[in-house]
Amino acid sequence: MTPEEFRRHGYQAIDWIADYLAHPGRYPVLARVAPGQLTDALPAEGPERGEPMETILADFERLVVPAVTHWNHPGFMAYFGISASEPGILGELLATALNLNGMLWKSAPAVTELEQVALRWLRQWTGLPEDWFGCIYDTASIGSMHAIAAARHAAVPESRTRGTPQGLVVYTSEQAHSSIEKGAIAVGIGQDYVRKTPVDSEFRMRPDALAAAIERDLAAGLRPCCVCATVGTTSTTSVDPVPAIAEICERYAIWLHVDAAYAGSIMLAPEFRWAFAGCERADSLVTNPHKWLLTPVDCSVFYTRRPDVLRAAFSLIPEYLRTADDPRAVNLMDYGVPLGRRFRALKLWFVMRYFGREGLADILREHVRLAQELARRIDADPRFARTAPTPFSVVCFRCKGTDDENRRIQERVNASGEIFMSGTVLNGRFTLRLAIGNQATTSAHVERAWELVREAAG
Amino acid sequence: MTPEEFRRHGYQAIDWIADYLAHPGRYPVLARVAPGQLTDALPAEGPERGEPMETILADFERLVVPAVTHWNHPGFMAYFGISASEPGILGELLATALNLNGMLWKSAPAVTELEQVALRWLRQWTGLPEDWFGCIYDTASIGSMHAIAAARHAAVPESRTRGTPQGLVVYTSEQAHSSIEKGAIAVGIGQDYVRKTPVDSEFRMRPDALAAAIERDLAAGLRPCCVCATVGTTSTTSVDPVPAIAEICERYAIWLHVDAAYAGSIMLAPEFRWAFAGCERADSLVTNPHKWLLTPVDCSVFYTRRPDVLRAAFSLIPEYLRTADDPRAVNLMDYGVPLGRRFRALKLWFVMRYFGREGLADILREHVRLAQELARRIDADPRFARTAPTPFSVVCFRCKGTDDENRRIQERVNASGEIFMSGTVLNGRFTLRLAIGNQATTSAHVERAWELVREAAG
Repeated sequence: MTPEEFRRHGYQAIDWIADYLAHPGRYPVLARVAPGQLTDALPAEGPERGEPMETILADFERLVVPAVTHWNHPGFMAYFGISASEPGILGELLATALNLNGMLWKSAPAVTELEQVALRWLRQWTGLPEDWFGCIYDTASIGSMHAIAAARHAAVPESRTRGTPQGLVVYTSEQAHSSIEKGAIAVGIGQDYVRKTPVDSEFRMRPDALAAAIERDLAAGLRPCCVCATVGTTSTTSVDPVPAIAEICERYAIWLHVDAAYAGSIMLAPEFRWAFAGCERADSLVTNPHKWLLTPVDCSVFYTRRPDVLRAAFSLIPEYLRTADDPRAVNLMDYGVPLGRRFRALKLWFVMRYFGREGLADILREHVRLAQELARRIDADPRFARTAPTPFSVVCFRCKGTDDENRRIQERVNASGEIFMSGTVLNGRFTLRLAIGNQATTSAHVERAWELVREAAG
Repeated sequence: MTPEEFRRHGYQAIDWIADYLAHPGRYPVLARVAPGQLTDALPAEGPERGEPMETILADFERLVVPAVTHWNHPGFMAYFGISASEPGILGELLATALNLNGMLWKSAPAVTELEQVALRWLRQWTGLPEDWFGCIYDTASIGSMHAIAAARHAAVPESRTRGTPQGLVVYTSEQAHSSIEKGAIAVGIGQDYVRKTPVDSEFRMRPDALAAAIERDLAAGLRPCCVCATVGTTSTTSVDPVPAIAEICERYAIWLHVDAAYAGSIMLAPEFRWAFAGCERADSLVTNPHKWLLTPVDCSVFYTRRPDVLRAAFSLIPEYLRTADDPRAVNLMDYGVPLGRRFRALKLWFVMRYFGREGLADILREHVRLAQELARRIDADPRFARTAPTPFSVVCFRCKGTDDENRRIQERVNASGEIFMSGTVLNGRFTLRLAIGNQATTSAHVERAWELVREAAG
């Protein structure tokens, strides 16, 4: 492609995006395609000869976009609402063109150093300990898997050479994300050795139950090696009591990992720091700027107080990647499974600079305010009840009826094309769940969601 | 950011890229910064208030770009040469703006279906079996880790619940990528149970040595579970004898994984299919379009004949992600550790359509031709000798002198700013290594590299 052609098609793409983001509610939020529809609309075989860029871009609009569930839609209130902000998009665009691979400092000094700088800024903004080491993975699932692998290594260093010994135990709560269990499966600890401790009435891990489980396992000759606490669980955004959990971990010398994939970003607003008390005593923590910090997917931040353990667990330096030792030239490949490392820090750095700490905190505060407003409306309506506390920007509630009635509400609302909400199960009953976190979502959208819910309830 | 501002800065970014890619050799290929230089040039703390996009883009050029080792430079001949082609950049730009997360079909039908379509096309273009299942991970390291985890599950299904049993063994060659060993460490098999079988004089795994190692381990009561063969090893791009290895794997019922991270793309040119004979008998295979298929990092393709095993090893469906069963609505989160899934297929699909199979094959053929030309020049110069065969686009050679002399050649060439080459160790001796794979690299660049090497040899 000539520079002129690239410029022309690049402008076209930028125009499309500018227009798309200016009218994020133009499309139905939930894709209105049947399974297989996009597949059937595309040729069964790839083209033998190249096609014009015009055709490809036209097919993108004509075929791909209708099969998109619009995470940018202001009515996207399912899972966790997220935003790829404009500076984040521009950062990713430039990073894509540079096409760096930061496996070694030397192979891309900018990748290595900007990642360290951005994560230092983020550590300061969130009040996490200054001496923690950070790196970026694609997802929190992969970050938590590395935390569990580091915990395994800390408990039994010979795991690296001899394999995972049987009987290591990972503790988390019933409300923890499935990635903790997957991580334990992946590193060879096994599902039978994942204890999902019960939670209290507000869906928080019960420290007494945790301590009891650890004692039981010790008595049975097993080896507790990792506790995964969550600040902002996926279903209800509940906050595990990290100070009490940290104390237990210190008492038994167990690695404490904190999953703050969603909620971590709100640490930028000091009035929410209460939720992260005790996190400074953790051994590792994950938080996803691609969730609630306006950074395009993927960008998951992993912090650890003990990078030496992670490095000891994974470092392997083949001859063709051997470089001179320099303490300022960190080779990030030494800290985990993936050798390749995309320039994910650039978009994060663009976002942090463009909005500043205060700007980002204000956007997140508004999300929380919208959620609290909705919570008040629900509380004021005798037909509905909240099913969990609302510490952040996710509201769990149900109409006072059967599970089927509530599922029907969800289906009707999602069929509107205006709002996409998810559901979950709490205390054995289906519950509705509205997650606010998109840059474009305003009070009007939340009001409309509430209106649709009430209409659907009949 | 208003749509007008986004448009303006987007055009700026596109202009910068158009100009950058038009003069890819403008900067020194290897970054001329000292460790810590970029870090020291940036503020120790992030900004409290937002900054103008102009300032951020100016700092990108002024501070970040000088700390870049230019993988786009036509003289980038280290590691594996790669290219983020223009259609790939445009695809990634649009994917970034859509900001989808394809964990479920429903959460992003376009992500799920386009990934399946693109990988079906690629399967046809490469001649791999039509019924294989494919998905995209960030890196081949993560893909190979999943292959080893699937092999573990196939050998001992209780691994999922009870953990990795001790004594599972993974086999690969001395020349295999370090990711195989890392994968075995990660999934809890352990380094002591990774057998690096010797290679023949052309750096190919010796099937007799493999069979002997398996027999020894069986006699010792161990359980062989996975063989990782390589088509296109990292040091020399040697090709393991997959048909003989497949036969051994079938005889002992061992999972066969093929690492074709670099070389896999050349299957698009039928005259290179000989190198992939036997791959159709593998259980899994990885190949990286972000290496030699003009796709921006990251995009690593994982194929398996036995997706049921991968799914059985990892599928865990939390309540908030439960969806109705529909055989055409695949939920890709079921096939591995990462829950989140970026829309990586879009850029790959753009690349495949823009160039077509024939167009891509021709670009790769030219890279091989350039490498063969260099090999002939080396063979014709009595001062130099090739240190490995050159089946594809990587040339290993040394001057007939000491290791130090050869290291000095590498240092001098890399100091030129015109060429960046790497080195490796073969048969205990340091060897120079030139990898050709960048879209911008022409005969003139390879000639210049050879000239610089000869000059440096004195």
